Amino acid sequence: MNQTKFELTQIGRVEVDENQGLFRLQIDEPYRPALLGLDRCTHATIFWWADKHDNPEDRTNSLVMDLPYAPDVKSGVFANRSQARPNPIAITTAYLLNVDQESGAIDLAYIDAFDGTPVVDIKPYLPMSDRVLSAEYPDWMEGFPASMEEATKFFSDPENIKKFS
Amino acid sequence: MNQTKFELTQIGRVEVDENQGLFRLQIDEPYRPALLGLDRCTHATIFWWADKHDNPEDRTNSLVMDLPYAPDVKSGVFANRSQARPNPIAITTAYLLNVDQESGAIDLAYIDAFDGTPVVDIKPYLPMSDRVLSAEYPDWMEGFPASMEEATKFFSDPENIKKFS
Repeated sequence: MNQTKFELTQIGRVEVDENQGLFRLQIDEPYRPALLGLDRCTHATIFWWADKHDNPEDRTNSLVMDLPYAPDVKSGVFANRSQARPNPIAITTAYLLNVDQESGAIDLAYIDAFDGTPVVDIKPYLPMSDRVLSAEYPDWMEGFPASMEEATKFFSDPENIKKFS
Repeated sequence: MNQTKFELTQIGRVEVDENQGLFRLQIDEPYRPALLGLDRCTHATIFWWADKHDNPEDRTNSLVMDLPYAPDVKSGVFANRSQARPNPIAITTAYLLNVDQESGAIDLAYIDAFDGTPVVDIKPYLPMSDRVLSAEYPDWMEGFPASMEEATKFFSDPENIKKFS
């Protein structure tokens, strides 16, 4: 078995204040040149470190779980999006409201990360790589929204949010 | 500025033999339970470490670059998909041909990673999070395929591959 380790460096942090509708990335000064041109994209995928689920001394301690939306199904974490996984790296594709390269502030329509969460990468959403029209998923996900746009409507109903928490 | 570091652990490796049409992930034994249920998904996003672009002693040494497909454009790496970036973590969404949990072998239709590349995570493709119908991108990407399915056809023409190399 391979035991190779790799080091990620934090490049910024998530700032969230739901009451104020604030969903922002604050990018650290040395990395701001890398934002050049991001304001020309509508969507980006944010890579963040789910630090509350970080177990560096045992990467194998959460491999199979019950699904909140399908309690009779056992699911390996490589078949779901749980943050409790060998490497707790999470991604959120988000709509970009504003990119200010000088201050490092990136305002998002939404991100499902806590205030203070470390950010480690940002990639533009690239339809030729990321938009899969034919993807199908297991029957226990039947009724899930079929796109990010549908999800935005779906989760505006609090009853639907409950199903996933 | 924040200097927090996080540790990724390799969970497997990419095996590629283009002559044989082989594009495989080989997952290390301790992590195989996490594959439970992945065979029910058609597509997954593979997270891999672009080890040839790893500069742990200087994460700020490649922030802006020329684009091979638009040489007159300077682009920050957070606005493109270059592997040379502060944290060289790359993603590929791939069609799953076969998932063998016992042996840890996952056969893919294609992955744009070298043979031997470290794998650090696998997530199922989830349309409500990953399929963005309305995403637009900069004018220098005009003519890019509009989905992964279109890209498969587009890149079957060697002339089109040249544009991106």
